[in-house]
Amino acid sequence: MTTKFKFNCTGTDGKARTGVISTPRGDIRTPAFMPVGTAATVKAMLPENVRATGADILLGNTYHLMLRPTAERIDRLGGLHKFMNWDRPILTDSGGFQVMSLNELRKMSEDGVTFKSHIDGSKHVLTPERSMEIQRLLGSDIVMCFDECTPFPATEQESLRSMQLSMRWAARSRAAFGDRPGYALFGIQQGSVFRDQRAESAEALRSIEFEGYAVGGLAVGEGQGLMFEVLDYAPDMLPVDKPRYLMGVGKPDDIVGAVQRGIDMFDCVLPSRSGRTGQAFTRRGVVNIKNARHIDDPRPLDSDCTCPCCSSYSRAYLNHVFRAQEIISSMLITWHNLHYYQELMAGIRAAIAQGQLDNFVKDFHEKRAEGDIEPL
Amino acid sequence: MTTKFKFNCTGTDGKARTGVISTPRGDIRTPAFMPVGTAATVKAMLPENVRATGADILLGNTYHLMLRPTAERIDRLGGLHKFMNWDRPILTDSGGFQVMSLNELRKMSEDGVTFKSHIDGSKHVLTPERSMEIQRLLGSDIVMCFDECTPFPATEQESLRSMQLSMRWAARSRAAFGDRPGYALFGIQQGSVFRDQRAESAEALRSIEFEGYAVGGLAVGEGQGLMFEVLDYAPDMLPVDKPRYLMGVGKPDDIVGAVQRGIDMFDCVLPSRSGRTGQAFTRRGVVNIKNARHIDDPRPLDSDCTCPCCSSYSRAYLNHVFRAQEIISSMLITWHNLHYYQELMAGIRAAIAQGQLDNFVKDFHEKRAEGDIEPL
Repeated sequence: MTTKFKFNCTGTDGKARTGVISTPRGDIRTPAFMPVGTAATVKAMLPENVRATGADILLGNTYHLMLRPTAERIDRLGGLHKFMNWDRPILTDSGGFQVMSLNELRKMSEDGVTFKSHIDGSKHVLTPERSMEIQRLLGSDIVMCFDECTPFPATEQESLRSMQLSMRWAARSRAAFGDRPGYALFGIQQGSVFRDQRAESAEALRSIEFEGYAVGGLAVGEGQGLMFEVLDYAPDMLPVDKPRYLMGVGKPDDIVGAVQRGIDMFDCVLPSRSGRTGQAFTRRGVVNIKNARHIDDPRPLDSDCTCPCCSSYSRAYLNHVFRAQEIISSMLITWHNLHYYQELMAGIRAAIAQGQLDNFVKDFHEKRAEGDIEPL
Repeated sequence: MTTKFKFNCTGTDGKARTGVISTPRGDIRTPAFMPVGTAATVKAMLPENVRATGADILLGNTYHLMLRPTAERIDRLGGLHKFMNWDRPILTDSGGFQVMSLNELRKMSEDGVTFKSHIDGSKHVLTPERSMEIQRLLGSDIVMCFDECTPFPATEQESLRSMQLSMRWAARSRAAFGDRPGYALFGIQQGSVFRDQRAESAEALRSIEFEGYAVGGLAVGEGQGLMFEVLDYAPDMLPVDKPRYLMGVGKPDDIVGAVQRGIDMFDCVLPSRSGRTGQAFTRRGVVNIKNARHIDDPRPLDSDCTCPCCSSYSRAYLNHVFRAQEIISSMLITWHNLHYYQELMAGIRAAIAQGQLDNFVKDFHEKRAEGDIEPL
C-alpha cells in the first residue's frame, strides 16, 4: 500500500476521466461517489455494508462532529476511522458550508465565523486554522479548505467579494495544514456563475497548490442547466493531473453530466436521505414506495438489481414497513440506493475505460425514460 | 428434514429440560428464546442477522398483521415467511392478548371480540375460528389458541369465568384448526394464581390434546415472586412429552428461573425494545448507554461478547449515536441484546445437557451482582 496521496488517471473519454486516487488507507476508484456519514454514521447502514455496496471513501461533516461528540473526543478515542469502524479513506468538509446553511446564530469576519451550538448553546469559532485543526483531530484523509460557499443568486460584486475571501482563507488553510505526508488538502474554486471569477479563483488555487480541487458554490439552487453551463468551463481551469470534486452533487443525471464535463468525485445525502423517505433510485427512475400502487406488488424495487433489498424483498413488503414506520424500511431502501449509486459509478468507470461513455449515457437516459412501471 | 412437528427431549436437569422441536421448516433448540417480529420485522434488524444471533424461530403478532398489511394480503404474497424473508419456523399469537391490551374500542361476547382498527377505524372480529383462519393465512408453523389473557389481579370468580371461556375457545380453536400435518396448535393454560384453576385448565387442555402447551396469564404485572410461585406447579400439570411455552417472558433472570421450573420456550420484546431505548443486557447487568459515564469510554458494552456491536464499537460511540438519535444506535444495541439472549439460551441448554444448571445459574447471578462498572 502506498504511503503517499496521488492521483493516477488511467483513461479518458472526451473530458471524462477514470483513474485511481491512492492513499495510505486504500484506493479510491474514480469517478467516485462518497456516501455521507454526517454524524459518524451513514444513516441506517452498518459501515461494512456501505463498503459492500462498493464505496471506497466516506464523507464526514466537520460542523456536526465538532459539536457532538467533538473533535477532541474523537481524537482521544483514536480518530474518526476507529470511532465509526471505517478503516478506508474519509473526506471531511470544512464546516463552512454547514455553519452558513444550518446555523442562524453566526457572525462572520475576515478571521472566520463565530456561532452558537444548536445542541447546547455553547460558543464556537471556525476559522481556516481551527477547521484544519478539527479535521486533523478527526484523522481525515482528505481535508477541505475552509471557505465561504457563495449563495445563489449572488451579484457579480457579492460573488467577487466572497470568492476573494475564500481565496485568502485557502492560503491560510494551506499554511495551517502543514506538512502531512499521505494526507491531502483540497482547494475549493468559487466564483458563482461568473466565468472570469471562476478563472481568477482557479488561478489563485493553482498558485497555492493543492492535492486536489473542488468546484464549490454549485448545487445550491441554480438548477441543472446553469450548473452544467458552469461545468462546461470551470473544471477545465483546474489542474488536469489532480482530482476534481463537485461538492454536494447530486441526482444520478447530475452525476452523469458532471462526469462528462471532467469531474472525478461526488458526495450527496440523496441516496441515504431518500432511503429514509421511501424514494428508491432505479434504472427506470424513482420509485416512491409509499404509493398505494405498490401495496400488492410482488416485484422488487428493481428487477435488474442484485442488492440485498432487491434480492429478498417485494415492493409490497417495503410499502408495508414504510407505512408501519419500521426501521427496516430505512435500512433496506438506503442499502438499495447506495448500491444503485455505486453501480452507476462502476458503470461510468467501465464505460470511460472502454471509450463508450456516450453510449452508456444514452442508455442511461433511455432506461429512465421508460419509467418504473412495468406490466405485472 | 422432518415432515412432522415433534418434540424430542434429549436431557433433563431437575425440572429443566433440553431438546429439539422438529418442524418441516427447521429445528428449534430448547429452551428457546423467540425474538418478536411484531409487524413482519424484528425491529432494526435484518432477518439474516437475527438468524446469525442463533434464533431458530420468530414470533409474529396476529393483531398487528391482520390490521396491516392484512392476513389476506400476506397470503396472496406467498405467506409471512416469504413476505419478511425468514424461512425458518414462525410462531404467531392468537391476537387475543393484544386486542385486549392495545384496543379500547372492543366488545366481548361468548363468540369472540369485535373491535375497531387503530389505523383506519375499520371494524374487525376475532373469534377462535377467525384467529385460526388468520394464522393459517399467515402460514404460521406454531399457531396459538384464541384465548382471553386473564388480567392481574383477578378475583377467583373473575379468573374462573375467564379461564373457562378460554377453555371453550380452546376447543373451538382445535376444531377450526383442522388437520394440518407439520403445523402445530398450542393450547394456553389460564387460571391466574389459583392452583385449582390451573389444574382444571390443564385438564381441559389435555383432554382436547395439543402439540404444545403455553402457560398464559403470567408476566402481566404480578411480579417475579408470584410468577415463580405459579411456575412451581403450573408446568408440571402439562404433558411432559410436549413443549411448554411461557408467553411474553422475559428478563434474563425470569427466563433462567422459568427454565428451572420446566419451561421450554420464551418470547419477549425486551431485547429489541431495549435496543431502541439504549439499554443493553450484559453478563454484568444492564448498561444504560445514554448515561454520561459512557461518553469517553473506549470499552465495548461487554468485553466478553463476540457480537458485531461489541467487536467493533465503543460505549463512547454508542453513547454518541444514541444521543444523536442515529438509527445505527438501535441497530447495534438490538443486535447485541438479541445475541446476548441467544447466548444465554445456548448456555442454559449446554448446562442442562451436562447436568450443570445449578452451577450455571449461580454463576449467572454472581456475574450480574458485579454490576457493569469495571475499572477503566
